Amino acid sequence: MISKNKLKELAAYRLQKRCDEEAVFVVEGPKMAAEALASGFAVRTICATGEWLAANAGRTGGAEVCEVSHAELERLSNFKTPNQVWMLVERQTPEKSSTQKDITLALDHLQDPGNMGTIMRTADWFGVRRIVCSADTVSCFNPKVIQASMGAVFRTQVDYVDLPQWLASCGMPVYGATLSGEPLSSRHTPLPSPGVLLIGNESRGISEDAMTHVTHPVLIPNLGGTAESLNASVAAGILIYELTR
Amino acid sequence: MISKNKLKELAAYRLQKRCDEEAVFVVEGPKMAAEALASGFAVRTICATGEWLAANAGRTGGAEVCEVSHAELERLSNFKTPNQVWMLVERQTPEKSSTQKDITLALDHLQDPGNMGTIMRTADWFGVRRIVCSADTVSCFNPKVIQASMGAVFRTQVDYVDLPQWLASCGMPVYGATLSGEPLSSRHTPLPSPGVLLIGNESRGISEDAMTHVTHPVLIPNLGGTAESLNASVAAGILIYELTR
Repeated sequence: MISKNKLKELAAYRLQKRCDEEAVFVVEGPKMAAEALASGFAVRTICATGEWLAANAGRTGGAEVCEVSHAELERLSNFKTPNQVWMLVERQTPEKSSTQKDITLALDHLQDPGNMGTIMRTADWFGVRRIVCSADTVSCFNPKVIQASMGAVFRTQVDYVDLPQWLASCGMPVYGATLSGEPLSSRHTPLPSPGVLLIGNESRGISEDAMTHVTHPVLIPNLGGTAESLNASVAAGILIYELTR
Repeated sequence: MISKNKLKELAAYRLQKRCDEEAVFVVEGPKMAAEALASGFAVRTICATGEWLAANAGRTGGAEVCEVSHAELERLSNFKTPNQVWMLVERQTPEKSSTQKDITLALDHLQDPGNMGTIMRTADWFGVRRIVCSADTVSCFNPKVIQASMGAVFRTQVDYVDLPQWLASCGMPVYGATLSGEPLSSRHTPLPSPGVLLIGNESRGISEDAMTHVTHPVLIPNLGGTAESLNASVAAGILIYELTR
């Protein structure tokens, strides 16, 4: 059971601003909830259906636990179809377990939460655990990012910085995904590392300020000749794959 | 101006079933509308704001044209925020312009419209213009697929078939994206073609019936060791890139 007042209080975390102020984020659904509980991150509050609570008895750690109906879950959820469990988790920097410590991903003005989460998921798959973002890149704690990241948020260090300044002082080669440069698929040897892989905005690409710091423009060849561009998370996936070969 | 009756009649095309019955599909937004008009596909009806109509005077071909308000566009649109123009386009098989005619993409039980559209867009970029889908794969004429495909729908031949039967009789090697098999990144030579690249369902992977026809299981190495899987459209992107090198 949950009181009306408590439900109202928790529903306020649908606002990103509220989450930012308290340095927490919302995790939803059994899969992501299991990741959260296993992650070592502090889970502050759990609201879940009786079904989820029965299946997870004894696994909720020190969290405040409220049983809610499906209708109550709908009031809390950021999604059209909420899925059994909603959690408030405290932000922290994940313990480093990088297997590709030599590669840093840099994101310039990335806007779409689905792309951001998918890129975090791909980086996690390839062991890239450090992401540096321009200040106006979508928050890695946006609920849609969390959802698409499939748990990568618990394993990835994400920093928001003055990106051109960071690139200028990072002391590594910067590979930038561009529409000119060396065609990737002509290479038979891996790109040298350590290095930074820079991915630009979905429609405008890498900004001018960041582009001046790109030391190695790379090009995914447009073999078809008709498509205008690749999806940002697909382009990032191909480049991360190539850089970690 | 558009009559109430006409608006009601056209709003019925929000149902996929209605579109299927008449072999049409809905295209929205200025970018996709421009692709549609340039594609050679027959555009049956255009509903657009005065702004779009003024900018596209003389470019609407033989289509029936209705000026609509933003509120009227909202009644027609499949999206939360409609964007200037809505079109009804007749389905047809695109003229073949394949530059990678030796590669066919096969999709097994793919469910997410965003993934389907993104995979079509990636295939288009790499010149792969033939896609064969299991009968239960999401329709390539789903509005969200059209949107994510960024025009690839006008250049790609998509067929829905009995996939295991098609694979059995295609007479080509079948590369299947699996969690075992030869690690892709250990290769320094392109995969042989002609061939079929088989991508499975987002959560269950390739079905058993289709898997029996995979001659070359391929694996995108899980270098991080913690992520459970890659996003289907990212995995497809890496494999199409590798297969077209």
